Amino acid sequence: MSNILTPRSQDYSQWYNDLIIKGNLADYSAVRGCMVIKPYGFALWENMRDVLDKMFKDTGHQNAYFPLFVPKSLFEAEEKNAEGFAKECAVVTHYRLKTDPNNKGKLIVDPAARLEEELVVRPTSEAIIWNTYKNWIQSYRDLPILINQWANVVRWEMRTRLFLRTAEFLWQEGHTAHATKKEAIAETTQMLDVYAKFVEEYMALPVVRGVKSANERFAGAEDTYCIEALMQDGKALQAGTSHFLGQNFAKAFNVQFTDKENKMDYVWATSWGVSTRLIGALVMAHSDDQGLVMPPRLAPLQVVIVPIYNKDVEARQKIDAKAEEIMKELRAKGIRVKFDNDDNNRPGWKFAEYELRGVPVRIALGARDLENNQVEVARRDTKEKASQPLEGLTDHIAQLLEDIHNNMFQRALDFRTEHTTNADTWEEFMKILDEKTGFVYAHWDGTPETEEKIKELSKATIRCIPLNNEQEAGKCILTGNPSTQRVLFARAY
Amino acid sequence: MSNILTPRSQDYSQWYNDLIIKGNLADYSAVRGCMVIKPYGFALWENMRDVLDKMFKDTGHQNAYFPLFVPKSLFEAEEKNAEGFAKECAVVTHYRLKTDPNNKGKLIVDPAARLEEELVVRPTSEAIIWNTYKNWIQSYRDLPILINQWANVVRWEMRTRLFLRTAEFLWQEGHTAHATKKEAIAETTQMLDVYAKFVEEYMALPVVRGVKSANERFAGAEDTYCIEALMQDGKALQAGTSHFLGQNFAKAFNVQFTDKENKMDYVWATSWGVSTRLIGALVMAHSDDQGLVMPPRLAPLQVVIVPIYNKDVEARQKIDAKAEEIMKELRAKGIRVKFDNDDNNRPGWKFAEYELRGVPVRIALGARDLENNQVEVARRDTKEKASQPLEGLTDHIAQLLEDIHNNMFQRALDFRTEHTTNADTWEEFMKILDEKTGFVYAHWDGTPETEEKIKELSKATIRCIPLNNEQEAGKCILTGNPSTQRVLFARAY
Ligand SMILES: [Zn+2]
Ligand SMILES: [Zn+2]
Repeated sequence: MSNILTPRSQDYSQWYNDLIIKGNLADYSAVRGCMVIKPYGFALWENMRDVLDKMFKDTGHQNAYFPLFVPKSLFEAEEKNAEGFAKECAVVTHYRLKTDPNNKGKLIVDPAARLEEELVVRPTSEAIIWNTYKNWIQSYRDLPILINQWANVVRWEMRTRLFLRTAEFLWQEGHTAHATKKEAIAETTQMLDVYAKFVEEYMALPVVRGVKSANERFAGAEDTYCIEALMQDGKALQAGTSHFLGQNFAKAFNVQFTDKENKMDYVWATSWGVSTRLIGALVMAHSDDQGLVMPPRLAPLQVVIVPIYNKDVEARQKIDAKAEEIMKELRAKGIRVKFDNDDNNRPGWKFAEYELRGVPVRIALGARDLENNQVEVARRDTKEKASQPLEGLTDHIAQLLEDIHNNMFQRALDFRTEHTTNADTWEEFMKILDEKTGFVYAHWDGTPETEEKIKELSKATIRCIPLNNEQEAGKCILTGNPSTQRVLFARAY
Repeated sequence: MSNILTPRSQDYSQWYNDLIIKGNLADYSAVRGCMVIKPYGFALWENMRDVLDKMFKDTGHQNAYFPLFVPKSLFEAEEKNAEGFAKECAVVTHYRLKTDPNNKGKLIVDPAARLEEELVVRPTSEAIIWNTYKNWIQSYRDLPILINQWANVVRWEMRTRLFLRTAEFLWQEGHTAHATKKEAIAETTQMLDVYAKFVEEYMALPVVRGVKSANERFAGAEDTYCIEALMQDGKALQAGTSHFLGQNFAKAFNVQFTDKENKMDYVWATSWGVSTRLIGALVMAHSDDQGLVMPPRLAPLQVVIVPIYNKDVEARQKIDAKAEEIMKELRAKGIRVKFDNDDNNRPGWKFAEYELRGVPVRIALGARDLENNQVEVARRDTKEKASQPLEGLTDHIAQLLEDIHNNMFQRALDFRTEHTTNADTWEEFMKILDEKTGFVYAHWDGTPETEEKIKELSKATIRCIPLNNEQEAGKCILTGNPSTQRVLFARAY
């Protein structure tokens, strides 16, 4: 059981796929690039969604739902956005199938049911939403609009990976409308902070907050803010983005409003999103060769109780009674707990199974433990085991879950600190990327051409220009041209 | 404000559309037959979803997520299901757009990016799910599988109506797999009971539980169970269905398992769903000419507090303080409450607005009320107003919300009782449908041909054969042939 995963050292990529499949998070499907999210993976997503949803509502947002389809003429209205997504759009062209006259029991697309205008399956919803906002906004009194949507979107990616890049994925997309530029920018950075807080305080994963270079901006945005996390193989992963869209969509869809002085102006916009990709980040950042390691605040199951029976029926009844009692007390504290008394599997099998699934805390409970008024408590993150008195057990477990969260965050932070390096020459830069891996801070001359060239030569991209970045004179690692600040480079997912 | 809706007596259909649009539940969209669910409507859906989701989990189900697209070859595998949905399928044929060489700034479908196999946008997910279950089921130990999915689906309907029939809609679809026929049938009826309980105890709407005739069965089912509700115009609305699918999908996708005796058998299946259509039912069943009437247990906002200020600033502060205090106490009881102290609108405007939105309870609070240690409490369902002492107010409001629920249910039940009639001849049958409207119990000879003929002549359909239906010898209203029971007819949405 403990060797069912390919070790990270042998093949990190295969280890990741093994984890997702054998950890029961997701499965491949019959549809190219689309996956099935299995109940265990979906329970994790539900926990993530519920926390985020509350954070959105606490910052004044409401949920709504807009159509899956975007008519082509709306899709192309904001030119840069359309250009950016055109190459990966699934397109609906027909609305009916009919029986194949030449092939009994088979269906063909009915050529008579061609749509007058093709429909794009939303890769993102700015177009359909701003076409709607047009009807909702006349005056400054109609602003701000603070709406979020939980939805599925489709981007026809050529190379897909479970959770990290799939043709269809689940996400949330916030779309807000404001009377002033200042207010829209404040919203953009507020939501970046919400994402950073979520990833750090729930996923136990430290992030760098920054702004993208022009090359890496969302198609149609004036500025893209992002959070970047570091994975165990030293590659970066963009964990969330928040876009200041300026007046681009308002102009494309002619959304104007009368301000307090009765003047007409275009509305200011933001959009922001995170997706099921976060599950990929969570898995890659924390897990080990024995399986998943779930951060306690999001773990579908936080504690599992495994009974160690012997042949004594009376002892068994005592174990069951005590386990039920512990479970009840933990539940009363809001802890997600399961008592696994399935007779078909032995304790050793269960230990390995819950290790694979990354359950943060395991309690084992046998006749001898009960005699000594104690249980065995094992934590998943460090694999430490210790006897623990029954007295005060629930408080101990609640505290332990917090300790595990903090330990996981600190471990990820230490790893990131160790794998963050300054490079001053091209040779250093390449050597770090190839050998040490991780985040590299280096000077760049600020031009898109140089950024592009660096990417071609090194396969590293500018992850972001960190917020409140330290200003420091230097020379671009590639061109030697003057630079005012280091930016954050990495190879990335 | 109070005349902004078309009265029911004048045009029931227009009244319904007015309610949805002016009550801020939904809006039309640029996509044919698709709607935008606005924040107020979506908050209602969230409440419905949360209650149902808990009921599903309490009966042992887990959520998962399957792909939006179904490859055509999978879609056509279960022949009856495919045939039933073929005429309303949106079909993805291409995966890329490109710039139009003849039309600057415009996009066209890239003919080079044609899919080898077309993808159907799911109208329902049996095909993609059973193709997946095939890989998950080998032995009886893998059963049952009890999975639910919250998703969007697309059915290309020619005549659409907000919530009641839209090309894209939101729903949940349960898909379960069982080792025995008996267990699958028990699941089917269990979920029908869950739906009936939800509609009666949360939507305050009585339903008839029954089974569909062969003509009205879900395509691919052995039996379709349903709940049927009666709307204020005397038309029926199918509020939920639960299907016993037999081994049809297991055979189409070759899903076999080894049972306890080590014999191979095909797996037994069920599926069951309710959708955003329920919002249409809720609105049509309870609302009046002044606006929506929300059933309290699902109302996005259960209580609104409207202050009645005069020019005395000190009095205003006292009113505000008391309103905040009441709000806090109601929230502590889990009641969804808002204090609307917006100075831009007068109390009369607010009264009409919350009446339109169907908020179950309104509390008005002025200086005179405070002097008398009382407030004015108005209930939306009966429009009764009364002074109520501040002492014990929160308990009173909590009880009042229950009373409103019970009153709404009883009113709908009384309406249904009045509009349920036995018909013994064709003339009676037609007269009831045309004049009295409502549910009609009548004898039918049990043949699909007669059912079809009755539908053609009367526009009424067999809504269901009620569960535990009374057996009674009689003659078919159309053919005069012998019949053993009355079945439930109505004109329907
Ligand atoms: Zn302790
Ligand atoms: Zn009372």
